[in-house]
Amino acid sequence: MISHKILKRFLLYRICLHKFQRLGFTKVFSYNLGEEAGVTAEQVRKDFSLLGIKGSKRGGYDIEYLLLEINNIFKQNGERYVIIVGMGNIGQALANYQGFRENKIITVAGFDLDPSKYTRKNIIPVHHPDKIDEIVREYGVKTAIIAVPEAAGQEVCDRLVASGIRAVLNFSPIILHVPEHVTVNYVNLRNELESLFYYT
Amino acid sequence: MISHKILKRFLLYRICLHKFQRLGFTKVFSYNLGEEAGVTAEQVRKDFSLLGIKGSKRGGYDIEYLLLEINNIFKQNGERYVIIVGMGNIGQALANYQGFRENKIITVAGFDLDPSKYTRKNIIPVHHPDKIDEIVREYGVKTAIIAVPEAAGQEVCDRLVASGIRAVLNFSPIILHVPEHVTVNYVNLRNELESLFYYT
Repeated sequence: MISHKILKRFLLYRICLHKFQRLGFTKVFSYNLGEEAGVTAEQVRKDFSLLGIKGSKRGGYDIEYLLLEINNIFKQNGERYVIIVGMGNIGQALANYQGFRENKIITVAGFDLDPSKYTRKNIIPVHHPDKIDEIVREYGVKTAIIAVPEAAGQEVCDRLVASGIRAVLNFSPIILHVPEHVTVNYVNLRNELESLFYYT
Repeated sequence: MISHKILKRFLLYRICLHKFQRLGFTKVFSYNLGEEAGVTAEQVRKDFSLLGIKGSKRGGYDIEYLLLEINNIFKQNGERYVIIVGMGNIGQALANYQGFRENKIITVAGFDLDPSKYTRKNIIPVHHPDKIDEIVREYGVKTAIIAVPEAAGQEVCDRLVASGIRAVLNFSPIILHVPEHVTVNYVNLRNELESLFYYT
């Protein structure tokens, strides 16, 4: 089991490795990667040794190989299905988000209480939340995005968990209560922006 | 100076306090708030004592008062202006985001290289990035959101910093290099979602 903290570091390394690739590099040393990521070279080596990867002292690490191994952690070679509950501004933006599609993340469906969203020209099919169970089972979806107003967040979450969802990305500004086998990541856009006003 | 970690906790407390208000409470004890926020009661008391607030042993804290003091940290009574650079899916969603408008965060303008975005019916005026300087000075904006593709992220950031921006919320999947007086918060939507696939 890799801790959440280390997972986040691997995703950070990936951002840095993509940058090095754009600059034309194919190899990287732990201290280059550490410097760009803001961690020590030792930490970099320790993290990759978790994946059984060792760099060579003279040549460093092969960037392509590191990226492949990082992507494997996040099952990029498997089927990465996701559903979105709440097709407001945020939900719609996520359904259209290139960053997901480019990386083999398939948004199979969206859900919303508002029937006007079912007929609109959406990039993904949008259904009534009553169909969550059916879609989750049909595609074997394990991951869901919650982008509903806060008053509906916990109820939606309970419904998702009951249908078999095991991982939730939550944009609702509430703390979700979930069973132990379910993982929640939080993105609170208002808080991320507001905390900045302290510094201005 | 309040550390970023403590700022985040105050924002977390606010989420919990809003929940208690919805449930009809007007007072809260440190252990109630701590339990909901996932921290110790002692931590809650310590954090609020930083703001010079003490609860009463018999009555606890006044929720309305705590919210007022938390909002003061984030200058809710001042002018909270923000600009958005990059009016793609994410930028547009943020321009329309209720969570900002409800909380007196005023998005004064968006910027995009694509001229078709200037005439579209936007909720905010959208300009060419060449106008960043002018708008930032006109409104005295100190906070900006970057929602451009990764290849443009650093260049946009440099331009913002040069025009006087001191706080950036960055959605581009890159690490930004900024001078010491500038604060950056990162939201990497792809990473937030991808890290979940590890658990599924």
